[in-house]
Amino acid sequence: MLSHLLHLQGIESVVLETRSQQAVESTIRAGVLEQGTVDLLNQTGLGARLAREGAKHQGIRLAFDGEQHRIDLTELTDREITVYAQHEVLKDLIAARQAAQGQLLFEVEQVSLQQLESARPQIHYRHLDEDHIISCDFVIGCDGFHGICRAAMPGGLRKDYTRVYPFGWFGILVEAPPSCDELIYARHARGFALVSTRSAQVQRMYFQCDPQEKVEDWSDDRIWHELETRLENRNGWSLKQGKIFQKNVVGMRSFVTEPMRYKRLLLAGDAAHIVPPTGAKGLNLAMADVRLLAQALESLYRQGNWSHLDAYSEQALRRVWRAEHFSWWMTNMLHTQGESSSFQQRLQLSELQYMVKSRSAMTMLAENYVGLPF
Amino acid sequence: MLSHLLHLQGIESVVLETRSQQAVESTIRAGVLEQGTVDLLNQTGLGARLAREGAKHQGIRLAFDGEQHRIDLTELTDREITVYAQHEVLKDLIAARQAAQGQLLFEVEQVSLQQLESARPQIHYRHLDEDHIISCDFVIGCDGFHGICRAAMPGGLRKDYTRVYPFGWFGILVEAPPSCDELIYARHARGFALVSTRSAQVQRMYFQCDPQEKVEDWSDDRIWHELETRLENRNGWSLKQGKIFQKNVVGMRSFVTEPMRYKRLLLAGDAAHIVPPTGAKGLNLAMADVRLLAQALESLYRQGNWSHLDAYSEQALRRVWRAEHFSWWMTNMLHTQGESSSFQQRLQLSELQYMVKSRSAMTMLAENYVGLPF
Repeated sequence: MLSHLLHLQGIESVVLETRSQQAVESTIRAGVLEQGTVDLLNQTGLGARLAREGAKHQGIRLAFDGEQHRIDLTELTDREITVYAQHEVLKDLIAARQAAQGQLLFEVEQVSLQQLESARPQIHYRHLDEDHIISCDFVIGCDGFHGICRAAMPGGLRKDYTRVYPFGWFGILVEAPPSCDELIYARHARGFALVSTRSAQVQRMYFQCDPQEKVEDWSDDRIWHELETRLENRNGWSLKQGKIFQKNVVGMRSFVTEPMRYKRLLLAGDAAHIVPPTGAKGLNLAMADVRLLAQALESLYRQGNWSHLDAYSEQALRRVWRAEHFSWWMTNMLHTQGESSSFQQRLQLSELQYMVKSRSAMTMLAENYVGLPF
Repeated sequence: MLSHLLHLQGIESVVLETRSQQAVESTIRAGVLEQGTVDLLNQTGLGARLAREGAKHQGIRLAFDGEQHRIDLTELTDREITVYAQHEVLKDLIAARQAAQGQLLFEVEQVSLQQLESARPQIHYRHLDEDHIISCDFVIGCDGFHGICRAAMPGGLRKDYTRVYPFGWFGILVEAPPSCDELIYARHARGFALVSTRSAQVQRMYFQCDPQEKVEDWSDDRIWHELETRLENRNGWSLKQGKIFQKNVVGMRSFVTEPMRYKRLLLAGDAAHIVPPTGAKGLNLAMADVRLLAQALESLYRQGNWSHLDAYSEQALRRVWRAEHFSWWMTNMLHTQGESSSFQQRLQLSELQYMVKSRSAMTMLAENYVGLPF
């Protein structure tokens, strides 16, 4: 996305990706786009397929105590979310960069950063069995939590903030029509469950599990039984089953590093911050980061103005911390915790009951969920 | 209060109090009355002195990062709070009951409950060196957290929910004019502080401390220095000092017992639930409980209708759990915790920043603070 935005401003960039294009375009990840993300894609000529294939959602459901309650996002905030899988966004971005003869390299190896102290940092890498060096004005670390860029920043100048949750999500991908026209976030004494969707044919469902849970211990029958138990509903709603074609367990983590810049190395997205997936914020935070970066770089190259780049970390982190708080809060409200007392469980129920009754509480959830303006 | 409400409906009651009238009328406790509490006092003829001497507050302040921010309670909720000390409410109540020749016994001793299984429970007690027995239709346990009534309920039928916080409040009473026309709730890296008031001449201030903190370790100078550090303000506001005439340390606890009834024994107020004082809910919850009880007893005596009494516990507990959640949330947002990580501290700041910026978040705080309708 950043490469696309820079291209539109006439700024050259090279994208280095360690995975293959096929792998990038087929790995199913997130799927909820904030309106700010959709607007950005539309404004930069990438909205056509999204408009056709994305599903606009005006609400979400909170399920607890055997009832589903609707939070009407659009009525409360005048905004909506769009369900369109992350790998579809990536396909559109890659197609646009390739159509524009963008420098997009897949399956690069042995990437390392050099000369980070200088005004011309270097990226060393191997591609198609040849060694290469790029000398550049800036290195942008969009390489995820396990990437090399954050690690290349001097540790003493960085502060990391972490929370690892004592639970994970057991995720499945299912060939079935959607069970609901909106996402269902369910709180049950046995743990959280989420009914989500990736398309009209592919559904994504999750349930809270031990982070050490083994996929092979879960037969399809056991999974459906667990999901149906947690999504208990006394009003006739039921889960649409189908062929489960993927099972996986994901850990849950909150993480922020500060600052998001070291000289000419700038971090964006998961390289700088991780949220638990409960608030659907990860992809959208990355989009907000790179939009700021594109503006800051444009301002530098056009006007020689460093102030936006100098402000990048602080400005990005304000949104990051808001999303970190929201994701942490949604996670705590909906998950059971081994160490949590029965007191804590009753607080959860009281909060959920309040959440679906008080307009101000609903609005607070909704305005965070649809995302603050970019 | 319950005795007063029952009297107005022609229902006889006897109040047994272990302390002396002088002690009850002079112990300074809470001081923030929700509008529902004020309305109830007004509607039952107890509002005259409250109207003259109570201070109406339309807002509170949240202080953090060297700035004070106002939450305009009245603009957000159309309601206000009244600062009028709990012992002044008690004086008014006692005067009213005594003027009506109510049976109000102070300094009773050796109180015990008998025959709780029967339709005529008994209260045994000693008063003015004589033993007495009251046979009655109902025993209402308004005897606080350490009282005998909750303990008299069969343990197996009750469930207790508890959270003890790893910090306390160091409280002082000061002879000084108010430092601010509204309460200030401050969050500082050294811990929470609260600037409150009891009257034009007496101020109540608190700062978070170790629950084992010793009063004698804190000179007046040290106290003022600590308060001023935590209430740091870059905009010229300052704390008005004065003679400190009381110092004490209070523990912080959340507690709920369910149900609030066993046969003809009913619990109200602190006997059934405790909140940390952060949300100013303790006194107001007790008022809401006894208002429900008065209505339920009236309905029983006038119409032989048990349904309100049967619903009492569940109905009262809905409000109790809302206040428990709110008080726990306010407490967590404003206090530092030994075990809390730097991640948690940044979440607090992000939440506070959001709280003073988002209208829905402010409204959520305000509507809970002023209190849901009785």
